[in-house]
Amino acid sequence: MDETIRQHKFVLDESEMPTTWYNLVPDLPSPPPPALHPGTHEPAGPADFAPLFPMDLILQEVSQERYIDIPGAVLDVYRQWRPTPLFRAHRLEEALGTPARIYYKYEGVSPAGSHKPNTAVPQAYYNKIAGVKKLTTETGAGQWGTALAFACALFDLECEVWQVGASYDQKPYRRLMIETFGAEVHRSPSELTNAGREFLKDPKNLPGSLGIAISEAVEVAASHDDVRYALGSVLNHVLMHQTIIGEEALLQMAKAGESAGPDVIVGCTGGGSNFAGLSFPFLREKLAGKMSPIIRAVEPASCPTLTKGVYAYDFGDTAGMTPLMKMHTLGHDFIPDPIHSGGLRYHGMAPLISHVYELGFMEAMSVAQTECFAAGLLFARTEGIVPAPEPTHAIAAAIQEALRAKETGEETVILTALCGHGHFDLTAYESYMKGNMVDEDVTDARLAEALLTIPSVG
Amino acid sequence: MDETIRQHKFVLDESEMPTTWYNLVPDLPSPPPPALHPGTHEPAGPADFAPLFPMDLILQEVSQERYIDIPGAVLDVYRQWRPTPLFRAHRLEEALGTPARIYYKYEGVSPAGSHKPNTAVPQAYYNKIAGVKKLTTETGAGQWGTALAFACALFDLECEVWQVGASYDQKPYRRLMIETFGAEVHRSPSELTNAGREFLKDPKNLPGSLGIAISEAVEVAASHDDVRYALGSVLNHVLMHQTIIGEEALLQMAKAGESAGPDVIVGCTGGGSNFAGLSFPFLREKLAGKMSPIIRAVEPASCPTLTKGVYAYDFGDTAGMTPLMKMHTLGHDFIPDPIHSGGLRYHGMAPLISHVYELGFMEAMSVAQTECFAAGLLFARTEGIVPAPEPTHAIAAAIQEALRAKETGEETVILTALCGHGHFDLTAYESYMKGNMVDEDVTDARLAEALLTIPSVG
Repeated sequence: MDETIRQHKFVLDESEMPTTWYNLVPDLPSPPPPALHPGTHEPAGPADFAPLFPMDLILQEVSQERYIDIPGAVLDVYRQWRPTPLFRAHRLEEALGTPARIYYKYEGVSPAGSHKPNTAVPQAYYNKIAGVKKLTTETGAGQWGTALAFACALFDLECEVWQVGASYDQKPYRRLMIETFGAEVHRSPSELTNAGREFLKDPKNLPGSLGIAISEAVEVAASHDDVRYALGSVLNHVLMHQTIIGEEALLQMAKAGESAGPDVIVGCTGGGSNFAGLSFPFLREKLAGKMSPIIRAVEPASCPTLTKGVYAYDFGDTAGMTPLMKMHTLGHDFIPDPIHSGGLRYHGMAPLISHVYELGFMEAMSVAQTECFAAGLLFARTEGIVPAPEPTHAIAAAIQEALRAKETGEETVILTALCGHGHFDLTAYESYMKGNMVDEDVTDARLAEALLTIPSVG
Repeated sequence: MDETIRQHKFVLDESEMPTTWYNLVPDLPSPPPPALHPGTHEPAGPADFAPLFPMDLILQEVSQERYIDIPGAVLDVYRQWRPTPLFRAHRLEEALGTPARIYYKYEGVSPAGSHKPNTAVPQAYYNKIAGVKKLTTETGAGQWGTALAFACALFDLECEVWQVGASYDQKPYRRLMIETFGAEVHRSPSELTNAGREFLKDPKNLPGSLGIAISEAVEVAASHDDVRYALGSVLNHVLMHQTIIGEEALLQMAKAGESAGPDVIVGCTGGGSNFAGLSFPFLREKLAGKMSPIIRAVEPASCPTLTKGVYAYDFGDTAGMTPLMKMHTLGHDFIPDPIHSGGLRYHGMAPLISHVYELGFMEAMSVAQTECFAAGLLFARTEGIVPAPEPTHAIAAAIQEALRAKETGEETVILTALCGHGHFDLTAYESYMKGNMVDEDVTDARLAEALLTIPSVG
């Protein structure tokens, strides 16, 4: 019943919204290894990507510029929900009894309910001005499919989405949301593609995976002249579009009186775009000697790409149609257990994040899903926002850090990203509340078997 | 592909958030008729309401003060999501080709996803400081139950919710959201109350109604010393708590360069709290001669309280346990068809709104649900926000007005409230998109029959 005035959210005016994306690559001591052509194993050039992406995005993928201007038409759409708020989690801190100060950047205010429109909108825009008629894509939990459907509706593009079978079955509301925005949704693996029909021959593939869904969407895009493919994470240009999150957070932390920056940044990682979006601008400050945050990726115990994968060239999809990328991978054949965080079930990690990890600029940890949902429920009942299962990983890690601060008495400043709300994931909360949820994990034997599928390169 | 800078949202700083609620009553030329004791038909006094509400709220219910201070502890919670944004619907205007300027105040950014926390939070607060342990309530679509569950979680109160059977069956996600915030949900009519058991004897009552659910929640509150009841609409104090919507919108319209105010305000009406919250501060300006907006309530064709009901004393609930209120009513026994706008299926209209309507200060119209969902779908695909079924009524009316402006060439300024998002209502959109939705309506014969249940008073 505290009646003192305390500020919960730190907002920016539309006029303070960043107008450039930040490219981390030129600030690193060495560049990330190039992608390789899947057949020749030679470095892939722009022409190799042209069947899938418009040239503007290919140039961003390999850009050495530190900053790239955000087009006016993209800014116009961003301004509907950006800048997004940065919240101080006063009530969560009270419940934990911690001296730590916990901040979260909330991306769930976007029309699609997550950070994904930050890249869906520019991807739709660049495809539109290149004359593309339709975009294909995959989606796991459905956050990405929703975002791309929204963006395509605004730019008058058709949109066709292959949704991972397990999520398609578990989350009908997410499919309906995608359809409400006007896109078409298929359960993957589907009968519509050669890849899908091939995967359907083995019953173990029925739940699908992001890798399988990517294979299907890529196949359709590559075989039609006026169709291109859009990826919701992993690639350099996608990570770069998301840096607007961290750029805004930098300004907002200063407004919150935290000009020295956070002591710890925690973010959940699937393909890595949300994590990179939040942390790369802070990493720039760290590399420049202006801040010194610990930067920590949090992944699910059942899909531990950074903590248990290997750093090697591997395919981005399961059928092996994409260029080879040097990344932390569990093997492109690896199908994670059907945990509720569908957005984190990807066999690889963004090559740029993998490179940063190898350079020693960040840490990684994994959390099992019951700990995540316990954290999500506490967060909902204190902060009032029901988090998507994916960011509950980051919240669980933030709570671990806040409880350490409680023991040491340190006023640790923790920053995390609440990358989306859980309105379409409530059956997962029900499963947790009823005590039906189990901690899906992965055995060493399964990991070893999957790692065998990684091709030998170089 | 317009790259000019146009402002989409008009925001206020936390420091600009109003710190008082506005009470319309003292500004009216005559006061609304008093509530009557259900047995004696004498004016009901504070003691008659004491079994249901804490004294602070009873005093607000009958207050003659124009402004009432919002307690600090309530402001502290409001500040998490308030002030809410006012949006200019540029893309919807473009799609309609209208010269009208359409603004919408968006309450879906609240933790519960609607305007309901504006009153749930103060109601929980005043009950908490009065020593109450548990609140009971009814909910239709579930917006109100979610809001009260959220507020009770913050103030450490137990919360028990009777949800209208039809909505309980149609919208499992909404129930899960309420449970995630820690409240208990029952399908109404239930076996847990005398009223519920009585209603269950007649199969026509199985889908439930707001009136039946109120009877159940009121019965439990009235029979326990440390339990009180909370209502999400209809009553004066509830409408007053919602005026923060209109007070903010007044400031934001000025920021948008519309100091002359809107030409037309349209809002959806069930019990009337969202409509009153948006329009009453503008009505104050109109009564003071400073603005001259047309103020128009929009109700569902299947539950046309203002347009086809009578103005008479009637019960707020179906079992006849509440005080009698002078209001526009279809009869407390009326059970509307199970349209998807569960929040608008109430047999009566707020007494204060009914009084304002009788005084001639506002208009009313009704819209059938397929027109509403067509409007909602167009809104989603242009503005990017999927509206709850309830505010699609207001959107449909705004579109009608914008198309009239297109014919006349007038730059009509339209203001409406998007009182909540439709994330839990996507099966309704599916039904519309598949062509399965019908226009539920009500025949004159059914209306005449229901009106017979209105008691003869005075």
